[in-house]
Amino acid sequence: YPGSISTGDPMWKCFLAIAGQDGEVDAEELQKCLTQSGISGTFSPFSLETCRIMIAMLDRDYTGKMGFNEFKELWAALNSWKQNFITVDKDGSGSVEHHELNQAIAAMGYRLSPQTVTTIVKRYSKNGRIFFDDYVACCVKLRALTDFFRRRDHLQQGVVSFVYDDFLQGTMAI
Amino acid sequence: YPGSISTGDPMWKCFLAIAGQDGEVDAEELQKCLTQSGISGTFSPFSLETCRIMIAMLDRDYTGKMGFNEFKELWAALNSWKQNFITVDKDGSGSVEHHELNQAIAAMGYRLSPQTVTTIVKRYSKNGRIFFDDYVACCVKLRALTDFFRRRDHLQQGVVSFVYDDFLQGTMAI
Ligand SMILES: [Ca+2]
Ligand SMILES: [Ca+2]
Ligand SMILES: [Ca+2]
Repeated sequence: YPGSISTGDPMWKCFLAIAGQDGEVDAEELQKCLTQSGISGTFSPFSLETCRIMIAMLDRDYTGKMGFNEFKELWAALNSWKQNFITVDKDGSGSVEHHELNQAIAAMGYRLSPQTVTTIVKRYSKNGRIFFDDYVACCVKLRALTDFFRRRDHLQQGVVSFVYDDFLQGTMAI
Repeated sequence: YPGSISTGDPMWKCFLAIAGQDGEVDAEELQKCLTQSGISGTFSPFSLETCRIMIAMLDRDYTGKMGFNEFKELWAALNSWKQNFITVDKDGSGSVEHHELNQAIAAMGYRLSPQTVTTIVKRYSKNGRIFFDDYVACCVKLRALTDFFRRRDHLQQGVVSFVYDDFLQGTMAI
């Protein structure tokens, strides 16, 4: 099915070749794999920052690196974001614009104020256009920060009391 | 004094040349200015991500761009971070290591748990070494997130209740 890795896949080969030593890849190695695999297609390759954000999201064992299981998850996630990006880019401009992001965020089930969506567009767009690399970084961060918040929102009231150190640990990691 | 811009300065010239149209620069233009100005010296030039973080920090009028006053502030800040980096890198390795960051964070007046410092090192280092670009990104984020937290910590107790939307707006912007 889409998102699965076959052993003939260039990304998988790259992972094996690079991860050899310790069975894990760091952000720079991940960037190399993703670029070689051609998963970005006609989109520009992933920045190191996006690779770091992706590792931060999936790095459950907090090694700062990505093992094979985490890597498989990422592969599936990337394929679904690619699909998602194409769906969200309704006018086929090759980028996601403010109103498209607005709809996408609502469709993903987030409830954000118009002001927050505007803040996000400013941060991740170039001249009002969000390209694939930044779109992925944005979605991953949104998910990771929401997960972080939810894990502490025991009463599910949308309000959380954070101690400073905990707040920083969660937000600096992402 | 160090940190001031003279009109003969290449960075200032670059700002004028690029900002011409609207008197503001975006992240990509800022990156160009910083690279041309040579402020990184022997360090590698600033990544687009670090430029975005710097703009997010200083962009008080939320235009997503940097006007001349914001730019002047950045220039002063960059010079002081450069000094700071050299001071913090006690062994002169050209990078900041875990124990050096630990001391630096304490010297800057932050009180973070060892676990949080470890998280930060993992996120911003390459093989345990934090280079100048990432050091600046890290310091700026640390300051911006701390400012964001403090502005809501009305009782100064180190504990803040965040509503989800506000939490996301602050953390996604940085
Ligand atoms: Ca579009
Ligand atoms: Ca501005
Ligand atoms: Ca050092």
